[in-house]
Amino acid sequence: MTKIIRPTLVVDKEICLRNMGKMAKKAAEHNLRFRPHFKTHQSLKIGEWFRLFGVETITVSSVQMAEYFSGGGWKDITVAFPVNILEIDNINRLAAKIKLGLLVENTEAAGFLAKHVLFPVDVWIKIDTGNNRTGIDPHDDKQVEEIIKQVVAGKNLNFKGFFTHAGQTYGAGSVDEIFNRHFDSLLKLKSLKQRFSNQFPKIEISIGDTPAATICNNFTGVDEIRPGNFVFYDLMQQNLGVCRFEDIAVRMICPIVAKHRLRNEIVIHGGAVHFSKDSITNIDGKEMFGRIIITKNGEKQMLDQMNYLSKLSQEHGILKVAQKQFQNFNVGDLVEIIPVHSCLTANLMRHYVTTDGKLIEMM
Amino acid sequence: MTKIIRPTLVVDKEICLRNMGKMAKKAAEHNLRFRPHFKTHQSLKIGEWFRLFGVETITVSSVQMAEYFSGGGWKDITVAFPVNILEIDNINRLAAKIKLGLLVENTEAAGFLAKHVLFPVDVWIKIDTGNNRTGIDPHDDKQVEEIIKQVVAGKNLNFKGFFTHAGQTYGAGSVDEIFNRHFDSLLKLKSLKQRFSNQFPKIEISIGDTPAATICNNFTGVDEIRPGNFVFYDLMQQNLGVCRFEDIAVRMICPIVAKHRLRNEIVIHGGAVHFSKDSITNIDGKEMFGRIIITKNGEKQMLDQMNYLSKLSQEHGILKVAQKQFQNFNVGDLVEIIPVHSCLTANLMRHYVTTDGKLIEMM
Repeated sequence: MTKIIRPTLVVDKEICLRNMGKMAKKAAEHNLRFRPHFKTHQSLKIGEWFRLFGVETITVSSVQMAEYFSGGGWKDITVAFPVNILEIDNINRLAAKIKLGLLVENTEAAGFLAKHVLFPVDVWIKIDTGNNRTGIDPHDDKQVEEIIKQVVAGKNLNFKGFFTHAGQTYGAGSVDEIFNRHFDSLLKLKSLKQRFSNQFPKIEISIGDTPAATICNNFTGVDEIRPGNFVFYDLMQQNLGVCRFEDIAVRMICPIVAKHRLRNEIVIHGGAVHFSKDSITNIDGKEMFGRIIITKNGEKQMLDQMNYLSKLSQEHGILKVAQKQFQNFNVGDLVEIIPVHSCLTANLMRHYVTTDGKLIEMM
Repeated sequence: MTKIIRPTLVVDKEICLRNMGKMAKKAAEHNLRFRPHFKTHQSLKIGEWFRLFGVETITVSSVQMAEYFSGGGWKDITVAFPVNILEIDNINRLAAKIKLGLLVENTEAAGFLAKHVLFPVDVWIKIDTGNNRTGIDPHDDKQVEEIIKQVVAGKNLNFKGFFTHAGQTYGAGSVDEIFNRHFDSLLKLKSLKQRFSNQFPKIEISIGDTPAATICNNFTGVDEIRPGNFVFYDLMQQNLGVCRFEDIAVRMICPIVAKHRLRNEIVIHGGAVHFSKDSITNIDGKEMFGRIIITKNGEKQMLDQMNYLSKLSQEHGILKVAQKQFQNFNVGDLVEIIPVHSCLTANLMRHYVTTDGKLIEMM
């Protein structure tokens, strides 16, 4: 049992298992390969929990993370990041022992892989269906053809299909808009696949984002889903309408070190080096970095939006609270906070504590 | 020699030593105790470089960091964070072996320390001179008196004086405003000290921020300075007018993985898990997370503000570049970027590489 005296990230295994189970069931119902993204938890232990649901294929965000999970016995890993050709030696070491999937979005990287990859790998072409971060325009057949030409010339490269992360669902203003953006993304991918399926009848479509994977039910033409954040969810997803408070599996526990009555502020040990600085806009128009949980009659509940984590510096966090709540927080108490972005918070914290006090290591 | 293939934080020892030397000299000239804040670099190795300038007293931002540096032979450490009473056992273990300084800003913590601290420690009262994060109003003599009463009742507590971090200098719109804010902060502290110096003739004033410590020259009444960021500086300090480009001692090296000509964007491996998400507002009104360095005729120079790190997700960074620069960046190249906030970037990267390729470990 770990006694909590410092900022600590608590993970609720029961909620995680429920989130995993729901998503695995959904994938099965829609005949989708379930390849969860492990960048959210970055932990061998939490990865093991996925095995209970038959998961054997995973996604990671870097070659380094693929090396970590390969070391933990995972044998089918896609690196969901445009390939970094400087890592070719690491890529070859991985490809020698696992089924490795890579992403390309330009002829330079595709041509380089064709020449230098020494063991069979799957190659996906990254398509930008509207997120405007990475990937090729889904209407740019010429560029797709040029990349395919490079890929099929590589004796160890297997052209696997089209891959997208429709991150534009995170910018949706409503649940309906998530449906629309997802549908638009699917249309573009299906039309693209159709144009190339005469030549490559086995190519697949892989999609990724947690918002659509959670709430949408149209996956026609899709072969694989790669959501990651759903294992924990967070305030961003709750704010988007993707999950409920009860579905959020992580919370930060922070000690209260000071109170400032004149401005209804509570100072906690818990800052940018614990939470990260992703924020959402609160109803008062201010930046919000987290919301406060209290336990009432044995039930956990989230205080309303006028009680929130309003500022972060390196180690300090400032809770803005309603006047009537002020006296409920005392120096030396621990306060529970739901982080805005669980992936970045977990990455900073470097380990978890379970609700029954066990330590879980991360990458 | 470390071959760089992944996002890497390079530290230039020569620039660090120059920054350390300048600040040590300034402290000596003004008869100030130099107690640099080690939260910026969090490294025993870089801490050792400070010893070349006679530094024996240091500042840290957590008890955990005090434990780390105490393990590296530092014997006089102030924890510049309102004391977290849950860490009393750790505090006592530290106080048993080093000269420990603690901060209080309320009677609860002061009273608790008076009862539970088992070895002599220095206690500072944290004053808020305008940063509005933590600390007591410098005009609130009543609260100061109440805290002092608790402190002097503790047989192991030595009331050391008044302590501030005038972080309001970071919000200054000009160098002149930094001078004004620093001067205002000093006035408040000197007046406070005066009111209590009959009763406590030996009390001191300790101030902290890098902007004022770097550019101001009025330190009358001050006994100690605790700047931290100056060891590396960063884009935020350069943007404030506190340092020059040539004074910045760290840069991120990131591989280029893709290019998008239609929007003049370059995709790098280097995201929120490397840079952190602190930003400054660019001249185009957009968020800026870093600026690009190029080497021209053997000289490093910073590209103008229309070439910058414009977006960050977990592992991806997007460089927005001027059209005429676009062809100078190629897939597989390494690009050098100055981070906005070196403290948070270093905290995420967990180690440094020196310009001659040696690895430097962190906490």
